[in-house]
Amino acid sequence: MIIDKLNRLTENKSPVCVGLDTQLSYVPEVMREQKLEDSLFNFNKEIIQATKDIVACYKVQIGFYEQYGLAGMTAYAKTLAYLRQFDLFTIGDVKRGDIASTAEAYARAHFTGDFEVDMMTVNPYMGYDSLEAYLPYLQNYNKGIFVLIRTSNPGAHDIEYLPIKDQALYEKIADDIQKIAQDYKGASGFSSIGFVFGGTQSDNIEAIRHRYADIPFLIPGYGAQAGQASDIKKYLKEDGQGGVVNASRSIILAYQDENNPETEVGAASRSACQHMIKNLKK
Amino acid sequence: MIIDKLNRLTENKSPVCVGLDTQLSYVPEVMREQKLEDSLFNFNKEIIQATKDIVACYKVQIGFYEQYGLAGMTAYAKTLAYLRQFDLFTIGDVKRGDIASTAEAYARAHFTGDFEVDMMTVNPYMGYDSLEAYLPYLQNYNKGIFVLIRTSNPGAHDIEYLPIKDQALYEKIADDIQKIAQDYKGASGFSSIGFVFGGTQSDNIEAIRHRYADIPFLIPGYGAQAGQASDIKKYLKEDGQGGVVNASRSIILAYQDENNPETEVGAASRSACQHMIKNLKK
Repeated sequence: MIIDKLNRLTENKSPVCVGLDTQLSYVPEVMREQKLEDSLFNFNKEIIQATKDIVACYKVQIGFYEQYGLAGMTAYAKTLAYLRQFDLFTIGDVKRGDIASTAEAYARAHFTGDFEVDMMTVNPYMGYDSLEAYLPYLQNYNKGIFVLIRTSNPGAHDIEYLPIKDQALYEKIADDIQKIAQDYKGASGFSSIGFVFGGTQSDNIEAIRHRYADIPFLIPGYGAQAGQASDIKKYLKEDGQGGVVNASRSIILAYQDENNPETEVGAASRSACQHMIKNLKK
Repeated sequence: MIIDKLNRLTENKSPVCVGLDTQLSYVPEVMREQKLEDSLFNFNKEIIQATKDIVACYKVQIGFYEQYGLAGMTAYAKTLAYLRQFDLFTIGDVKRGDIASTAEAYARAHFTGDFEVDMMTVNPYMGYDSLEAYLPYLQNYNKGIFVLIRTSNPGAHDIEYLPIKDQALYEKIADDIQKIAQDYKGASGFSSIGFVFGGTQSDNIEAIRHRYADIPFLIPGYGAQAGQASDIKKYLKEDGQGGVVNASRSIILAYQDENNPETEVGAASRSACQHMIKNLKK
């Protein structure tokens, strides 16, 4: 099960997930004097090279590449190929949600071929049959999914937190999917069906962590998204296991940060990761 | 407002939306002796040429192209460029749902550049701030969105139909977004914020049509997805306005259908569209 691999990585390295939300405006001017796909890819490459021995995985947000059309998709594919070349763990942040033959196409799209990743994010809105197409890949091809459950944007309260009987919608969805997840548990005790889980201390993080003890979390909101490390680390178990914490701009734009001692893209991203690892341990 | 253009097209042609859910296995063998992107594109081209004077628009399901990696994305871009060349109306069925800078990237990805469409589908799960990035394009760049509200798969009951006080979740979402939609109404009286609305007669279609009178519907489920034309046409107003009805396999695979008098891809797809137009008028 793929989740055992991620678990080993968080144990041996750290729970840090580097979010490669790369836009052209983030790339230093000297690196922009190339074809667009090479500018984006080479920027990512510097960050990957500098951080790969201390972080668990890389989350590549497809939207940032899609905005540049075919050239951007080429940079996305090149970045994933590079990560695979070093056997690094990849999460495709694609948030797909569809059914039947379309969902099957999405599974093929992101679990094989140019856009292949280890795990991908999915959106549950259309119902649990929207997850079915991915499940054979979990069982037979060592892949996994992170289902969007609760997010940390203000609008999360519009739908995710709505009351369904005595619980919030996101809790009902999480409870339902936890049942499905039981069939996809690895030796680590965690399932290859994970949850995207964000939100602050007021959302009772300890209870959430306890209730979904066998579910790995992909935790957004660190750094530039203003999440507090003290809240965020409560999504992890006491031994630091149980998921990965994503940071994007606070790592990839660290070279612009006056508080970061480094000014070069790679070195600054490494320094930002080290700082984050320390904060999550405190 | 883009919706006025769609409204004129449904009035002058028909409410048919051709779903270009193109897979390589759908393409006749003689057309497969080319590069993958050309096989998919040329198949689409035949269908578009044969149907463009009688249908309102084309919905291109990005997942079917994504499954072929970069070559598939090239076919997707070529198909959209061809549709734009003839000023045909395009819907990108991408079901994106994200927030902040990622949502902005998605808006740029699908409203400009290689993947530019007139309207795109979006998923509301993360909340109404996930719609914000698209709104300036509605106002200033003649674009529109169809928000996923209610779908016709069995799993729709897992989440979409859950009770929130005295209504279903999908009704609450539709009510909330209808308010936002008021600011984006065109001369036709319809909003450039539309709803994806599916489901059968037992779901009280007439009441839905009446309640969201100023919202254009993108209606899936005709044909291969087993929707009944008699139910489906109730999503349209009595004058046949108020949305478009999508059919995919029943049109693009019509050339394989023994009940279709034509055996050539283009002619068969036209014949299937004509049959559908007749059924929706009955």
